[in-house]
Amino acid sequence: MKPRITLKKIASEFGVSISTVSKALKGSHEISEEVRERIQAYADYYNYKPNNLALQLRNQKTSVIGVIIPEIVHHFFSTVIDGIEHYANQKGYNVMVCVSNESYEKEVLNFNVLTNGSVDGLIVSVARETQENQKFDHFKSLTKDEFPLVLFDRIIDEINCDKVVIDDVGGGYKAANHLMEVGAKRIALITTEDYVTVGSLRKQGYLKALKNKGITIDESLIYYIDDSKNLYQQIEKVINVPNPPDAILAVNEIYAANALIIAKERGLSIPNDIAIIGFTSGLISEFTSPPLTCVEQHGYLMGEQAAELLINRIENTAPKDFQKEVISTNLKIRKSTFIDG
Amino acid sequence: MKPRITLKKIASEFGVSISTVSKALKGSHEISEEVRERIQAYADYYNYKPNNLALQLRNQKTSVIGVIIPEIVHHFFSTVIDGIEHYANQKGYNVMVCVSNESYEKEVLNFNVLTNGSVDGLIVSVARETQENQKFDHFKSLTKDEFPLVLFDRIIDEINCDKVVIDDVGGGYKAANHLMEVGAKRIALITTEDYVTVGSLRKQGYLKALKNKGITIDESLIYYIDDSKNLYQQIEKVINVPNPPDAILAVNEIYAANALIIAKERGLSIPNDIAIIGFTSGLISEFTSPPLTCVEQHGYLMGEQAAELLINRIENTAPKDFQKEVISTNLKIRKSTFIDG
Repeated sequence: MKPRITLKKIASEFGVSISTVSKALKGSHEISEEVRERIQAYADYYNYKPNNLALQLRNQKTSVIGVIIPEIVHHFFSTVIDGIEHYANQKGYNVMVCVSNESYEKEVLNFNVLTNGSVDGLIVSVARETQENQKFDHFKSLTKDEFPLVLFDRIIDEINCDKVVIDDVGGGYKAANHLMEVGAKRIALITTEDYVTVGSLRKQGYLKALKNKGITIDESLIYYIDDSKNLYQQIEKVINVPNPPDAILAVNEIYAANALIIAKERGLSIPNDIAIIGFTSGLISEFTSPPLTCVEQHGYLMGEQAAELLINRIENTAPKDFQKEVISTNLKIRKSTFIDG
Repeated sequence: MKPRITLKKIASEFGVSISTVSKALKGSHEISEEVRERIQAYADYYNYKPNNLALQLRNQKTSVIGVIIPEIVHHFFSTVIDGIEHYANQKGYNVMVCVSNESYEKEVLNFNVLTNGSVDGLIVSVARETQENQKFDHFKSLTKDEFPLVLFDRIIDEINCDKVVIDDVGGGYKAANHLMEVGAKRIALITTEDYVTVGSLRKQGYLKALKNKGITIDESLIYYIDDSKNLYQQIEKVINVPNPPDAILAVNEIYAANALIIAKERGLSIPNDIAIIGFTSGLISEFTSPPLTCVEQHGYLMGEQAAELLINRIENTAPKDFQKEVISTNLKIRKSTFIDG
């Protein structure tokens, strides 16, 4: 790779100060026309480009937003980024995305890369390992510096910053209620470990809906999935039992789609023998047979709102108190729970 | 936001040079212990952090790889990023992703943000608009500077750099051959506009397979999808015709999944009346009914290889001549084309 030509090298070539080169390249009349032209010609020859880093060091503003997501192969997070992009671009900001891969260490590394001058603010959904270990020092250090930060989806209550979540409790509640309305008596919940905030909140909604109808909670119908183990085998244990549930509420799309496949393999009719509902803003649900009813997560809207909160904070147009936006969920009813007519 | 404390401000506060502050904070014994301690205490109080930008200006190496993809809500590109991440992390590099949203202007903007000091090299899949308009100046400017660059999937022949593609011609060929082997006589091709390189190459494979079997090409069986228009309505025109094709080869998963839904709505049996095959490394194909046969795109492997090529280029361990890696494709045969036994 050809060495990058720098102000310093040009200055040394001409035996002048860096400041003189810089002024010459900006066309300053403090520098004689002859010197300006010679320096400009030299810089053009070596394809000199003003170094953004140097510019940023002077004015700090990058017009770039950093985003850290736990996983990249995940339709929900893709749609959130799409929403962030859309709002940020309108406001003249660019977006850079890093992935934590659910790792605390990687999340901290991403913080280091992004927050030392590359971006004006950060939008983050917290890595699973960070949530599990409750190690939030990197977040605390940012907020102590008053660095603009927005948390979305997987948030941390004790961190003071702007936040966007969906109404996960409400989503779980609506889904369980819908299943009871279509006649379900024994609703299995397929969820994540409790330290994953969204799974835990959706479970709260499920429990609340059952209690409201006076149904005693049957703990044996609540299944906690370990994402590091085989998904199919874990979900088989929900359905391939002597007395399977008559409905399944799954806290994400991939759990629901697997449940649908397993139920069909067992010869169960959907929704007559077993109704199934998932959480998603994904594509799989539209193409299963029957298509899956789901609680819509509104990832795109969440992204737009996160970007709006962040940019208001960056541009000092936000209220002094931090905001917490809660996006309502709605059911997209398809044939996995309800047959029309 | 609290103003960031800088070396300059600390120097001005103490009436010493920036170099003195810098040495003091590094614990240099050139500076008296008393001054060191006072400067350190002041820096701690204001939560001073050495600015990465300043460090980068000195040594230029960022250990960050920039990636520009055309779309974020796209499973294939997500898997490529996952592969890039995996290889890059092993080698001590972090990854930053920007999205061009298929726009030339946005792609150029991403180039500007990423190539002025934020990253050591770039991995890019070209935006549709850039391909359509054949405007490659931003790429030429990079390669002129010998800036490390790898193109993947959607590449540009005239740009001299390392490249990774899948064997798109071979994939189209294998898919069409498989359809003929299971008895198809009239295979419709659902593809993109020809300026999208991958669509055009897959079409070449399809044409080659048919010609090899002595089949005359029926241009009326080749459908070009305009992604800015309604997908369902365009694909309906392939199937809801008096004499529908007995097989469909779609150049991506979403075209194939829509074709499957439409064929079922029309009462066609899959694969008996119509066999369907897509290109993918996506998830939808596993969950349709019947599940879709597809040409596997190996996005993860493509990402790993792109990262390897780039890091070898960055670290000057690559051969002088640019490499072009071609990843073979293989068929994942499922029930949309073939019923076992």
